[in-house]
Amino acid sequence: MSSYPIMINAFDPSRASELPENEQALLARRQRVLGPAYRLFYEHPVHFVRGEGVWLYDAEGAAYLDAYNNVPSVGHCHPRVVEAIARQAGQLNTHTRYLHSGILDYSEMLLATFPGELSQVMYTCTGSEANDLAVRVARQFTGGTGFIVTRLAYHGVTDTIAAMSPSLGTRLVLGPHVRVVPAPRSAGAAANPVVHAAAAADGGPQVGRDFAAGVEAALGQMRREGIKPAGLIVDTIFSSDGVFADPPGFLQDAVAAVRRAGGVFIADEVQPGFGRTGDSMWGFQRHSLVPDIVTLGKPMGNGYPVAAMVAKPDVLAPFGSHCRYFNTFGGSQVAMAAARAVLEIIREERLRERAQETGHYLRRGLAALGENFEVIGDVRGAGLFIGVELVDDRATLSPATRFAGELVNELRRRRVLISAAGPAANVLKIRPPLPFGRAEADLFLETLEASLAHLQA
Amino acid sequence: MSSYPIMINAFDPSRASELPENEQALLARRQRVLGPAYRLFYEHPVHFVRGEGVWLYDAEGAAYLDAYNNVPSVGHCHPRVVEAIARQAGQLNTHTRYLHSGILDYSEMLLATFPGELSQVMYTCTGSEANDLAVRVARQFTGGTGFIVTRLAYHGVTDTIAAMSPSLGTRLVLGPHVRVVPAPRSAGAAANPVVHAAAAADGGPQVGRDFAAGVEAALGQMRREGIKPAGLIVDTIFSSDGVFADPPGFLQDAVAAVRRAGGVFIADEVQPGFGRTGDSMWGFQRHSLVPDIVTLGKPMGNGYPVAAMVAKPDVLAPFGSHCRYFNTFGGSQVAMAAARAVLEIIREERLRERAQETGHYLRRGLAALGENFEVIGDVRGAGLFIGVELVDDRATLSPATRFAGELVNELRRRRVLISAAGPAANVLKIRPPLPFGRAEADLFLETLEASLAHLQA
Repeated sequence: MSSYPIMINAFDPSRASELPENEQALLARRQRVLGPAYRLFYEHPVHFVRGEGVWLYDAEGAAYLDAYNNVPSVGHCHPRVVEAIARQAGQLNTHTRYLHSGILDYSEMLLATFPGELSQVMYTCTGSEANDLAVRVARQFTGGTGFIVTRLAYHGVTDTIAAMSPSLGTRLVLGPHVRVVPAPRSAGAAANPVVHAAAAADGGPQVGRDFAAGVEAALGQMRREGIKPAGLIVDTIFSSDGVFADPPGFLQDAVAAVRRAGGVFIADEVQPGFGRTGDSMWGFQRHSLVPDIVTLGKPMGNGYPVAAMVAKPDVLAPFGSHCRYFNTFGGSQVAMAAARAVLEIIREERLRERAQETGHYLRRGLAALGENFEVIGDVRGAGLFIGVELVDDRATLSPATRFAGELVNELRRRRVLISAAGPAANVLKIRPPLPFGRAEADLFLETLEASLAHLQA
Repeated sequence: MSSYPIMINAFDPSRASELPENEQALLARRQRVLGPAYRLFYEHPVHFVRGEGVWLYDAEGAAYLDAYNNVPSVGHCHPRVVEAIARQAGQLNTHTRYLHSGILDYSEMLLATFPGELSQVMYTCTGSEANDLAVRVARQFTGGTGFIVTRLAYHGVTDTIAAMSPSLGTRLVLGPHVRVVPAPRSAGAAANPVVHAAAAADGGPQVGRDFAAGVEAALGQMRREGIKPAGLIVDTIFSSDGVFADPPGFLQDAVAAVRRAGGVFIADEVQPGFGRTGDSMWGFQRHSLVPDIVTLGKPMGNGYPVAAMVAKPDVLAPFGSHCRYFNTFGGSQVAMAAARAVLEIIREERLRERAQETGHYLRRGLAALGENFEVIGDVRGAGLFIGVELVDDRATLSPATRFAGELVNELRRRRVLISAAGPAANVLKIRPPLPFGRAEADLFLETLEASLAHLQA
């Protein structure tokens, strides 16, 4: 648990000489002009030139099934989003200090998808900026400074938010007022993945109690150190922690504890939001609670840089009276046009429902694979955000880290894109664009089965 | 100097009832859904629906001459940028962890406009994110934490950068390791604006010595408090401080002092960059020095959210070996396509040269107005980044704050857009899209003259 790779599924540049010449040339240019902080995916990086729906195409025209990218959520290059961007970019693209109805129309449409108390929204360009703003708002409202995050949380890359993102690696120094708690451990990580649902239902309350106990301990630590709590922030699908969705409601005890201590609850919906979890538009709804602040990002504009923070008006008020906030590109007409197209497509193409249906189908198929492949220790998630925990031993759940890496790369060789997550990098992260349907799920399952068989042969 | 409006040229919502009914309705919706941290410009806000070149059009079809917006730098809705965005958005828009030549082609093109030492670039979505990253890079390289900013600096809105942006208002708490120094005072603020150039040349070295003295004092303060300096960051046109461009080279002494103390120099080119200052692509080039880190933003994609940090490889190296950095939308194919179109347009339409020519012409015209209007105390700036200091008394330079506000709003009534800056909000900030030519300069000068005459009648 204490050591994990600096980045899961990263290309190792020392192996550049094994690549084809044209890719070596691209790589050399990258290293020269982009410097040392950039990373590529896979043992053999992929060079894409075109995207459409759930497919990406490489420079030779080969098609890859995208079961990984959650940003192009309504499908790569969805023509309606492209058209909305092009039309608005040709008409007007300026800031929010002039009146414009576009931002209001979209805001009203977006806020209608939230519980009534969450009735105000502010726009940024990235999820990092949204979380950064949420932290400022929470501090101003509570008068506190302490934040609780999960052990392998990822919330973004601004200075303040990177210091609250332990998944960025152990060399990154966390903020002095940041406390780390264990991620909720799904009760479903049982010997037989097929019984997952039943186990989850059984072990349900315990998951919530365990997670709350971690949060209570962190709050106690803050009390002793004289740190006033500002809030608890979690990605409601716990993506980088290893994908934990069940049992529904397990967040409630922890949130209640934080509120008793004077802090707020920030739901980071940058990854689970916009229908991906299937049963609802927002991951927090799975837990039957109303956060004080919610942050949105990645799929919001299907790749156009737009993000937001939604808040209860009383939580936002102290920040609003102390600080003005202006984000040059945030809430611009083009950003709003792109975001509106995405929201309309989700509704009209029933993508949330589709995520729900395909997600069920896919998890059932994965659980079935578990009958033949002992390495599958757990299948979990919600909608089209799925985690498959690979283990060397189903009794001890010892992580099959190396195997997970080989499998991700074997799938890439077979032109299927996923990655891995979790402290031991042994949880397959399956997170396709939402138009992913049964046909693609079947193709995915077949390719996964063949890859498992190949690697275990 | 100690008190300044919470925001210059902000609409006062308590006067909403004076607006036409349809605008009141938009305003009510804004207050309901966007909350209290948003601001509008002008006593009577403007509702724009279309933009083209240097013109914005309101809901009734009336045209406004844009002499303010520096984001749509190659002109509102430039068809070539729109087309580049639309074409690439329809083809591929994904992140930088797959290989793609677009980011490399643009990076090489961009870096060719910098001195050779500044040879690596990293992409973000906003100038705030670029400055935030620069701060992290500077800390890692120097091992220091102290930063020096000017008295009314604005560098962005992330938590860390807002704490380095005193222009956001006195209620905002600056970071504990942030030290504020007086902005360079142009020697040209003389009794007669017509002699500005000569006065600047005369008083030249003194401006640099004064500014360096402030920086030396801040460094001394840090030393006594045990704070190791990380760097000096300035907007090289000092926009929010009141626009200070002359004499060229005045930054050199201060930068030398910071480097002697172990810190780096970060040139914030978010506002002056991409040719706006006319004589060169980057504001720092006016000062004949090479920064350690440069940040870019606003005009980079003509409104598409794209920004960047350019650095010397040795300065970036420690950050790169400690931290990875991934910005989901940063450096995406569409961002690069938009940015490339902008760079090509600047070159092919000779917009830097045009900024230089029109800027000279405009400043000459403004200085000529100073012969009839005593309120004009100084005309300064570079290229199409111009400041006009309004004073109640040319001998004492006492600021004509109220008059500046009235003038900005009178110009808006006559459908010309500018704003004001500086600690006393008495410096007209004139900063049009770069295609602004002689015809527009003449129209601007005529309207300004009529407005001055009207207000002084």
